[in-house]
Amino acid sequence: MKRSERLVAMTNYLINHPQQLVSLPYFSTTYAAAKSSVSEDLSIINDMFQQEGIGYLQSVSGAAGGVRYIPIYSKENSASFIDELCDKLADSDRLLPGGYLFMSDILGEPAAVNKIGRLFATAFHDREIDVVVTVATKGIPIAYATANYLNVPVVIVRRDPKVTEGSTVSVNYVSGSSRKIQTMVLSKRSIPDQANVCIVDDFMKAGGTINGMKSLLQEFNANVTAIGVLAEAEDEEEDRVVEDYTSLIKIQNVDVRNKQIDVQKGNYFS
Amino acid sequence: MKRSERLVAMTNYLINHPQQLVSLPYFSTTYAAAKSSVSEDLSIINDMFQQEGIGYLQSVSGAAGGVRYIPIYSKENSASFIDELCDKLADSDRLLPGGYLFMSDILGEPAAVNKIGRLFATAFHDREIDVVVTVATKGIPIAYATANYLNVPVVIVRRDPKVTEGSTVSVNYVSGSSRKIQTMVLSKRSIPDQANVCIVDDFMKAGGTINGMKSLLQEFNANVTAIGVLAEAEDEEEDRVVEDYTSLIKIQNVDVRNKQIDVQKGNYFS
Repeated sequence: MKRSERLVAMTNYLINHPQQLVSLPYFSTTYAAAKSSVSEDLSIINDMFQQEGIGYLQSVSGAAGGVRYIPIYSKENSASFIDELCDKLADSDRLLPGGYLFMSDILGEPAAVNKIGRLFATAFHDREIDVVVTVATKGIPIAYATANYLNVPVVIVRRDPKVTEGSTVSVNYVSGSSRKIQTMVLSKRSIPDQANVCIVDDFMKAGGTINGMKSLLQEFNANVTAIGVLAEAEDEEEDRVVEDYTSLIKIQNVDVRNKQIDVQKGNYFS
Repeated sequence: MKRSERLVAMTNYLINHPQQLVSLPYFSTTYAAAKSSVSEDLSIINDMFQQEGIGYLQSVSGAAGGVRYIPIYSKENSASFIDELCDKLADSDRLLPGGYLFMSDILGEPAAVNKIGRLFATAFHDREIDVVVTVATKGIPIAYATANYLNVPVVIVRRDPKVTEGSTVSVNYVSGSSRKIQTMVLSKRSIPDQANVCIVDDFMKAGGTINGMKSLLQEFNANVTAIGVLAEAEDEEEDRVVEDYTSLIKIQNVDVRNKQIDVQKGNYFS
């Protein structure tokens, strides 16, 4: 196989296997090339990935070594994407009762969701994460996009148990916004004991939902090593109950009566 | 920029923009190369994509022309992935009350979900599709993966209205399996009038849920042009109410008492 062909095939392979260790012999066997040629190919790919701001190839030396694509998104790519998103969200027609924001259209675009996942994976790429956890429904696509770039599975907390889950563990928690007691359930066989968990959600006000997930995860002896929310909004009536989270967008000065809203980049950028 | 570098950058770009028309001038401007060089690059990429069984580049001629990556998955890639999935699912420990199958672990793996999406996008690549619709919760990741490869948005039908959806349209339907009357709601601003819709879900028995989605979509004057289910299972007590669907996996001869199950490739492969 020619170098030009190998570069196309190897680029495709690496992009589709983020955070996965690939041995050099795998490439040289698959594409019938000398190890030295494969090394040169990888060096070209590494340079271009960095130039494009989509990450880099990490070399792991030793007998069990190889190369791993770390899909971190450059500061420039990240900021320009979030600036664009803030512009779209700053439309006062999006304001809903209770100070919520209509975001379903944007969360319905796979390309936007993938970029959100890339950003969280970038923010958390050096933390210990075995699984990404979210709660149904809106956080699900973001959780999958994040988990894809981190190369870990997703586990979904539900608000109602279903027969297709098998036996479950449940907790009750107080929702920060509605102040109602709500229930969350998680399938017993979903998370191994003492897993390192990244919690992801689309929206956070006081943080009651995320706190509920933390309580539920305690039942599995999990360590929450990262918390990511797409948008955080102020809750005038209640203090935030969650600390140490990463937000991509911050919604401030919501004035439902006068249809005013202020959408800024979140704490990830500060 | 050298050809080798361009090939890496263009391969990355095309893989991340499936079903999207890219003009040749875009590539020659972005990578500062002559149009003839870009054409040669695209020909190399096209050959390799076909050789790898991950699709091809479609040329669109004319002033508004360019090239479009059609990410269809080869028969060999598709069959080997589904064979593997059938093996995993044929474990009798997965049997749940009511003849359901525990699939949450597999549906929690982003790589597996992406491949399922690739298969649906392959099955439906020549149909008119403006939007992929699914119902919360388990169908969501499959819907996003499918929509990603089709380059269309996702719309999620819910079982309960939420304030963050704005105003909604709802229908009642009879669930095939539980024979209960259930409700489905969809945000009013979610689907344009007369859209071409692809319905995707993880599991189908009698088909009551998919029929409910069809009724709800009629309220939006939508045309259902494709229906994809990951797994179909027999329902001894009720006849199927949905025809003309594509399944990737077929579950037969479920015997809960004796813990027996038969998992085969679905009708997509016949």
